[in-house]
Amino acid sequence: MRIHLQNPDNDPLFDFSYAMWDAAAARAPDISQGHDVSLGVTPADFLAGMRDAEALVCDASVIRALFPCPAPRLKLIFLTNAGLDWLAPFDWLPAGVILMNNRGTHAAKSGEFAIMSILMLANRIPAMITNQRFGQWRKLWGSVLHGRNLTVVGLGTLGGATAEHAALFGMRVTGIRANPAPHPSCETVVGLDALDDVLPHSEFLVLACPLTDATRGLMTRKRLESLPSGAGVVNIGRGRLLDQDALCDLLDNGHLSGAVLDVFTPEPIPPGHRLWTTPNLIISPHTSADDPATYNPRSLDIFLSNLRAFRDGDPLPNRFDIARGY
Amino acid sequence: MRIHLQNPDNDPLFDFSYAMWDAAAARAPDISQGHDVSLGVTPADFLAGMRDAEALVCDASVIRALFPCPAPRLKLIFLTNAGLDWLAPFDWLPAGVILMNNRGTHAAKSGEFAIMSILMLANRIPAMITNQRFGQWRKLWGSVLHGRNLTVVGLGTLGGATAEHAALFGMRVTGIRANPAPHPSCETVVGLDALDDVLPHSEFLVLACPLTDATRGLMTRKRLESLPSGAGVVNIGRGRLLDQDALCDLLDNGHLSGAVLDVFTPEPIPPGHRLWTTPNLIISPHTSADDPATYNPRSLDIFLSNLRAFRDGDPLPNRFDIARGY
Repeated sequence: MRIHLQNPDNDPLFDFSYAMWDAAAARAPDISQGHDVSLGVTPADFLAGMRDAEALVCDASVIRALFPCPAPRLKLIFLTNAGLDWLAPFDWLPAGVILMNNRGTHAAKSGEFAIMSILMLANRIPAMITNQRFGQWRKLWGSVLHGRNLTVVGLGTLGGATAEHAALFGMRVTGIRANPAPHPSCETVVGLDALDDVLPHSEFLVLACPLTDATRGLMTRKRLESLPSGAGVVNIGRGRLLDQDALCDLLDNGHLSGAVLDVFTPEPIPPGHRLWTTPNLIISPHTSADDPATYNPRSLDIFLSNLRAFRDGDPLPNRFDIARGY
Repeated sequence: MRIHLQNPDNDPLFDFSYAMWDAAAARAPDISQGHDVSLGVTPADFLAGMRDAEALVCDASVIRALFPCPAPRLKLIFLTNAGLDWLAPFDWLPAGVILMNNRGTHAAKSGEFAIMSILMLANRIPAMITNQRFGQWRKLWGSVLHGRNLTVVGLGTLGGATAEHAALFGMRVTGIRANPAPHPSCETVVGLDALDDVLPHSEFLVLACPLTDATRGLMTRKRLESLPSGAGVVNIGRGRLLDQDALCDLLDNGHLSGAVLDVFTPEPIPPGHRLWTTPNLIISPHTSADDPATYNPRSLDIFLSNLRAFRDGDPLPNRFDIARGY
């Protein structure tokens, strides 16, 4: 197959290389041989590659900047992002071209970020950081995770990895997802319609779902207020999953004991925004899911497993469902 | 046995109660019956209790404030602290009285604090916090723990729990302790004499040993400098284990990527001290090891297991070795 890999021109940390392709190819010899692979970085490289490419592997920023363009043989687009909400509506996608996202890449890194965030909340790190900012030595006692109630919204790659780690620490995990099928690391799994019943018992809440019409603004002010006093919130999904101002208010007035956020509205957070100074809030600059050392190799592994399914006529594991939004 | 429990008069979070004793007694029925237990909080309570007590259970601050005093029948002192370095020299201990510390109580909480700290370093949280303080949105990419090198100095309650968590995350753990016997969670265990060989490969360093003549000032400036560029440091032992000024210098100049410290020289950290503003440094106010919800119940369990050993003529598991210092 004619495969074109296009690197973004502004993020050298996440570049593909021929050596990286060769290494991935060696890990999947049954599907990686006989392809004609090109690698581009400039817009001219992209246009040249698209003239005969059957598969495109790139970051969503490349799509935004350079696509659509003439691509007469294109059959597959594999994007190295998981959340594609920012590419909607998908009218740029040529008819008959299959779109894939990169779900699965982020499991290891996101899972570790999430359990770290839960541990930080249990250990009162957000409040310690706020005290540190003011040069104040104040004893603050945390607690162990065993037996504490965690609610995870979304049980995909991110939420599933979160639940898995939390269960290993002995937490009592409730999962919330569209299809409330059981999950091995959750004591309970319920649908989104049961959210309001679950929140008052959620000492820790992790938002790990995609941004869709069903989840936009999910955590309203009223729902955030219904969390128990002293609860902590983690958001590794998308900023628009929650009412950010309400969250800041509830940190200001102490109803919530802390929050660790990786996603915001807007990004980057503008200078002077209240998020920068809200107490007991930790800001991670939307980097929780990605480990440059492993991201692109893992992405190529996932691409090749989809290529195998495509060759064999099987359903593509990473096919993006435009109607569903993930 | 006549047992006196004395609460400190300044820390209501860590008070014993009769109900707590009864609950602990119910967990260890073979050794907890037939004792005459008193509970005090004022100095007068203490003096009254000591007139006939055979066993004293209290915090080290009680010893500092009220002991020695007449205690003609005293045989056992169980202190609810693990590190007793601040009670040295031990000339206050009456001849023939057995001193015990509380080692073991801190395993769960300290282990979770330590793995949280390692995850924070791997995820670049200390640098994110520093950026947040200045209102700066800067992408910072972290990494997963799998395959990374961790060195843990001390493999007692704290270090053992640290190594155990780290191994579950797939880290390659090197343990350092006085007696370099193997440890199930460590790939390698070496003696203190091999420290200089290990440090240049230690991406993460956790100090989890007691403060003794052998460990005071262990991490000199030269040794801290010998850590690889970008290494991170965690200290849950004692502030005087390391050259604190050298640590701050190496954070200032970027050789170290971050530090999470629970212990300092001095404590509390005085206003205006450089620690408050050193970049990429997280300050926890010496509370990493203690969970008020479980601390005293667990302490009583440990006391009762020592009482059982005392009754049976077995070695006391928590007997404090004054010469060794732990």
